[in-house]
Amino acid sequence: MKTSNTILIFFTLSLLFSSSFGAVQDFCVADLSGPQGPAGYSCKNANKVTVDDFVYHGLAAKGNTTNIIKAAVTTAFDSQFPGVNGLGISLARADLAPGGVIPFHTHPGGTEILILLEGTLCAGFVSSSANQVFFKTLNKGDVMVFPQGLLHFQLNSGKGEALFFVGFNSPNPGLQLLDFALFKNNLPTELVAAATFLDVAQIKKLKGVLGGTG
Amino acid sequence: MKTSNTILIFFTLSLLFSSSFGAVQDFCVADLSGPQGPAGYSCKNANKVTVDDFVYHGLAAKGNTTNIIKAAVTTAFDSQFPGVNGLGISLARADLAPGGVIPFHTHPGGTEILILLEGTLCAGFVSSSANQVFFKTLNKGDVMVFPQGLLHFQLNSGKGEALFFVGFNSPNPGLQLLDFALFKNNLPTELVAAATFLDVAQIKKLKGVLGGTG
Amino acid sequence: MKTSNTILIFFTLSLLFSSSFGAVQDFCVADLSGPQGPAGYSCKNANKVTVDDFVYHGLAAKGNTTNIIKAAVTTAFDSQFPGVNGLGISLARADLAPGGVIPFHTHPGGTEILILLEGTLCAGFVSSSANQVFFKTLNKGDVMVFPQGLLHFQLNSGKGEALFFVGFNSPNPGLQLLDFALFKNNLPTELVAAATFLDVAQIKKLKGVLGGTG
Amino acid sequence: MKTSNTILIFFTLSLLFSSSFGAVQDFCVADLSGPQGPAGYSCKNANKVTVDDFVYHGLAAKGNTTNIIKAAVTTAFDSQFPGVNGLGISLARADLAPGGVIPFHTHPGGTEILILLEGTLCAGFVSSSANQVFFKTLNKGDVMVFPQGLLHFQLNSGKGEALFFVGFNSPNPGLQLLDFALFKNNLPTELVAAATFLDVAQIKKLKGVLGGTG
Amino acid sequence: MKTSNTILIFFTLSLLFSSSFGAVQDFCVADLSGPQGPAGYSCKNANKVTVDDFVYHGLAAKGNTTNIIKAAVTTAFDSQFPGVNGLGISLARADLAPGGVIPFHTHPGGTEILILLEGTLCAGFVSSSANQVFFKTLNKGDVMVFPQGLLHFQLNSGKGEALFFVGFNSPNPGLQLLDFALFKNNLPTELVAAATFLDVAQIKKLKGVLGGTG
Amino acid sequence: MKTSNTILIFFTLSLLFSSSFGAVQDFCVADLSGPQGPAGYSCKNANKVTVDDFVYHGLAAKGNTTNIIKAAVTTAFDSQFPGVNGLGISLARADLAPGGVIPFHTHPGGTEILILLEGTLCAGFVSSSANQVFFKTLNKGDVMVFPQGLLHFQLNSGKGEALFFVGFNSPNPGLQLLDFALFKNNLPTELVAAATFLDVAQIKKLKGVLGGTG
Repeated sequence: MKTSNTILIFFTLSLLFSSSFGAVQDFCVADLSGPQGPAGYSCKNANKVTVDDFVYHGLAAKGNTTNIIKAAVTTAFDSQFPGVNGLGISLARADLAPGGVIPFHTHPGGTEILILLEGTLCAGFVSSSANQVFFKTLNKGDVMVFPQGLLHFQLNSGKGEALFFVGFNSPNPGLQLLDFALFKNNLPTELVAAATFLDVAQIKKLKGVLGGTG
Repeated sequence: MKTSNTILIFFTLSLLFSSSFGAVQDFCVADLSGPQGPAGYSCKNANKVTVDDFVYHGLAAKGNTTNIIKAAVTTAFDSQFPGVNGLGISLARADLAPGGVIPFHTHPGGTEILILLEGTLCAGFVSSSANQVFFKTLNKGDVMVFPQGLLHFQLNSGKGEALFFVGFNSPNPGLQLLDFALFKNNLPTELVAAATFLDVAQIKKLKGVLGGTG
Repeated sequence: MKTSNTILIFFTLSLLFSSSFGAVQDFCVADLSGPQGPAGYSCKNANKVTVDDFVYHGLAAKGNTTNIIKAAVTTAFDSQFPGVNGLGISLARADLAPGGVIPFHTHPGGTEILILLEGTLCAGFVSSSANQVFFKTLNKGDVMVFPQGLLHFQLNSGKGEALFFVGFNSPNPGLQLLDFALFKNNLPTELVAAATFLDVAQIKKLKGVLGGTG
Repeated sequence: MKTSNTILIFFTLSLLFSSSFGAVQDFCVADLSGPQGPAGYSCKNANKVTVDDFVYHGLAAKGNTTNIIKAAVTTAFDSQFPGVNGLGISLARADLAPGGVIPFHTHPGGTEILILLEGTLCAGFVSSSANQVFFKTLNKGDVMVFPQGLLHFQLNSGKGEALFFVGFNSPNPGLQLLDFALFKNNLPTELVAAATFLDVAQIKKLKGVLGGTG
Repeated sequence: MKTSNTILIFFTLSLLFSSSFGAVQDFCVADLSGPQGPAGYSCKNANKVTVDDFVYHGLAAKGNTTNIIKAAVTTAFDSQFPGVNGLGISLARADLAPGGVIPFHTHPGGTEILILLEGTLCAGFVSSSANQVFFKTLNKGDVMVFPQGLLHFQLNSGKGEALFFVGFNSPNPGLQLLDFALFKNNLPTELVAAATFLDVAQIKKLKGVLGGTG
Repeated sequence: MKTSNTILIFFTLSLLFSSSFGAVQDFCVADLSGPQGPAGYSCKNANKVTVDDFVYHGLAAKGNTTNIIKAAVTTAFDSQFPGVNGLGISLARADLAPGGVIPFHTHPGGTEILILLEGTLCAGFVSSSANQVFFKTLNKGDVMVFPQGLLHFQLNSGKGEALFFVGFNSPNPGLQLLDFALFKNNLPTELVAAATFLDVAQIKKLKGVLGGTG
């Protein structure tokens, strides 16, 4: 390849392929102010996308665990981390003080994979077909997968703190905490009782704790 | 759990999880006036969504069967029932007077499952691989499934009225009625003839019935 | 078209298209004895498929509601109705005696659409984003949709019996009943307590009712 | 990088990454004799896959157009070309003698894109929403797309031969020829008549041509 | 069917089905000026869609091959051919002068199927699992499939020109040319060297050819 | 609820729901010895599945970084961790000694999300549309997402070791290392040269390092 051809080559190659692909959708960084559809947020103008749209700092700090569950969940879902919009993936971190717990919950829109980085965890899920419980004590470095939509929990079973990260195969898997769904809203106590077989006193107690009414 | 902690607990738990999930996309009720994309309609503002968006009354009444096919189809697709937008599901009801028929048709975008509630039905579909016909007389309570995209029909083969509901795995499966596609538009008669091997007289007759031109 | 050409035409047309499409996969009726994969059951040999594979009689009869929930759910999922395998759809019927209830549950793998055929129903679901309750009294003919993976319930709020059908956008949506997941297995009481904040006495009572141990 | 390190490097790099990925599923060439599932055929043993599994010669030759439609369709679907199994794509060629036609048909499982290589074509499809006809005369080099599941046709409107290729977004899109579905099987004439509004004489005539019975 | 009923029939049938399906989404022609989402462009108003939205003339002409690679790729992706938006399919043509090559590249979002129309081609791809090369000399009429995301190339190995068309199972599969990704941007030379093990001189040479900086 | 009813209740509730759901597919743990299909491995018999199928210990230990890239990648894909089969998710860990690098590579089948746990990383990817480089120095706790199919790299830019985990939205995303694809096989040098524009000497040098032939 002769040097004298370099400029010619540069121009022709550039013209050859570049112009056609202006809208190739390698990614669709969320424009949180635009219209939202079933597949996610509208895309930010590609010309304004920078590397900072693909980097998120919000999981670096430990969450505040001085609360009733002695635990904190911090998420990097599409509404916090617009870069994952449309990419079918997201991440979250969980910090658990001694005795801390992520109570029974589901993710309506995704499977979860967990990697334990610190401490000891008792984690489990329940199958829908046979109500079979799959639970186990996890140690540092252990990985566990929780199939989509099934009830699961994680409990710090060690003496120190526990830290883990979870990945999801959705930019927005959702998180439905059982106690919140049942007791932290205005669903009438008698309806909760009828639909759960829990005692009224139990329901009222937890509604009281969580601020539910009715 | 001491009562004195209740207020503290209420605040910390609320702060802990609530703020992060404002945009979790549990659903995407159609905003019929917003832009539409390949995955469906834009989402209605979540703050304005009420239970009425998820409830539809339009299938309660029997359709008017005083027409040529002695039948009526009433749909609860996304454009009528915005709550199903993005959820991959919809419903329709069919009423057939004695002698009524839902003529050969396809749903380009979905599989159909039928439950017969009243009457007797002769229903069938044709496979594409071997042009094999799968048809059967259904009685009250029978269920039949029609695989996606295949030509099928339902015919009231009893003496009384027939009523059935059909579910689809799409919020908008489409409905392409064979007679309408061939005869209820301006496709020139000679083209219809060439592409169907039907006689010109037959085509003109049905174009006349259905209001087709050309 | 001359009659004398008919036989020739018949042969050439048949040869032209038929041979190539022997394996076109219009459907994949489940072979319940074959290997199962992530997408469903293996397909029954296409040559042995008949219309009876696509018709199911199991939803015609009312379920037995003489039980604690005064209700019965009868399903037409792939393991009962092999014809829906691979077609992304299924159906179930629910019968509720007066006072009957389908307690809080989720379907991990699908959205549900309900059509009420008899009686009066109080039905609702809880969103994951804001723990908002969407519930409403439904009358005959009303349709309601329950987005995938969210906790929901249906309760006979009338004086007579209630009957409804539900469609799913999966041949096997699963059904996770909250009470069964929590109390009908060997998950130790202290773990249930820690992961739900329910009182130990409440848990033991319901474990007793449902046959759970631990 | 010193030459003396080459051998060491070779070994360590090989060990580092290779062993873990023995089953990475870059492709799943169809084992036509193995069990079939909703997602396609079983995969051929990866160790026996060669480049010849990804190359197909069957579209090179012109099809025989000495038949009633004066046309031939030759497919490279998964059952003919096992390399496309699981890859969501396939191809077919069509040859049309003067006056030849690919009559009205649908592909239940895929969208079609056409490129005309020789001759002049009149091609069109009908929308399901409004029975609107979209048809046009295509010339050499023109491309046309036919949305999934909609009735469409292609007709040689020139004086010479026509040749085109079509791509599909499925390894097995299926092909349901309208005339075959209606007239080339044992669906009773009175049922065809009831479900199409065609005259009995017309039906019997085409059943005769195509070898249908009943 | 009596003639006197024709008008009545026309009206009732029209009313029966037509009104409900105004928004059936048979297609979603791209509105290139509207908001874009993860599933593609917004849909053009259905009332303004014509057959010309589904026909593309841009692949009819041979591309200009007087450039360094002696080849030209012309695409019919969604941004050039709005009719394919949302339909999961697209097409491109490639012209190669003698000695021409489409250098190593990937399509991040789709599988490719190739049909060779003129000339002789040496085409191949590399598996990710075992770095196995699958390459072969193709002749006129041969078809080859390139599984999604794998590095592949096509090289004119004959004496004359080569022409082929490629189909994709995405309206926008993307095209990442290896040389462009490495050398036609501002990624610092030392980073390219570290991440490729190529010599600095080699990198600088190709950056010079392609106009890369840093 | 009277105690005397407990046994009755237990039986009726159990009978009511349990029998129907024996095959509900909450998960499909890979049977590595069974047939594989496009959607993944066959499912292990559900009765033999235990919690150990959902837990993986293989990412706990640091990989061996005494190699040319001073880095190690350890994967928890379906072939190592059968529990993720069919669940659309997987995980891997990467250890980088000072100066270590994960060279340019792609994942043909999935998007990657990274969380940096130790050290300092320079990570980046190249868009296909404009060959734009998105790279950035990441610190402990930073998250970065790499869209599906695009070339990317990670380089230890700090003085100490670096450790990160990556999640994928596929149980088997694949890993195509650029250098391995080009130089660690038997693709003839002249073909590599023609398809990359690299100098023959450069190719031979790297083939030598990686054990490629031809």
